[in-house]
Amino acid sequence: MKSLLVVAHGSRREASNDEIRVLTRTLAERAGNAYARVECAFLELAEPSIPDGLREAIAAGATEVVVLPYFLSAGRHVVKDIPEEVDKVRGESPDIPITIAPYLGSVPALQDVLLDQAERA
Amino acid sequence: MKSLLVVAHGSRREASNDEIRVLTRTLAERAGNAYARVECAFLELAEPSIPDGLREAIAAGATEVVVLPYFLSAGRHVVKDIPEEVDKVRGESPDIPITIAPYLGSVPALQDVLLDQAERA
Repeated sequence: MKSLLVVAHGSRREASNDEIRVLTRTLAERAGNAYARVECAFLELAEPSIPDGLREAIAAGATEVVVLPYFLSAGRHVVKDIPEEVDKVRGESPDIPITIAPYLGSVPALQDVLLDQAERA
Repeated sequence: MKSLLVVAHGSRREASNDEIRVLTRTLAERAGNAYARVECAFLELAEPSIPDGLREAIAAGATEVVVLPYFLSAGRHVVKDIPEEVDKVRGESPDIPITIAPYLGSVPALQDVLLDQAERA
């Protein structure tokens, strides 16, 4: 049972956090049977935290979790903070594989999205 | 002569700004003949500023500029700050149409990129 956890920065502006929650529900619908569960978590300023999101996934029966960093650049958050948050739960649940996907900004397919987006202007 | 200006937040971490510059060059190559010029500009913390990026495009001969907000959420930067920066140059060059494309986080095709990204984990 594979679970997906979309990880965003989190914002003081609740509407931005809600954008992530809506995106997460949309991804859950589009993913079909690929994941038993698709949820989101936040590095800071919003709930749940990354460790709590992972714990909830595991409590719900996940035997494997993929963490999806919804970040555009390879800054400290992507390189250091997210792995450290994930490591907390790896320590608690060493039998559950938790993998961190490439961050969004590193995905080459993003370039096509950007050019499409420009054409809509 | 249509010009594309990728607008990112800008970072104190120069490597993050360079990520945007590399992305911009890649977009220029992929865009083929769609744009005579593809450049980037930053809302803060890096150069050029949005007005300077627009001025450079116009000085280079652009008769139309598309601004592409490389942002994931519809926060103050997208809703207020970017339009205000663009308006400065609209006032200076009223004959050059400058349009602002939808911000990256609002583009539905992003969902496919995210699901592909998760599969690579």
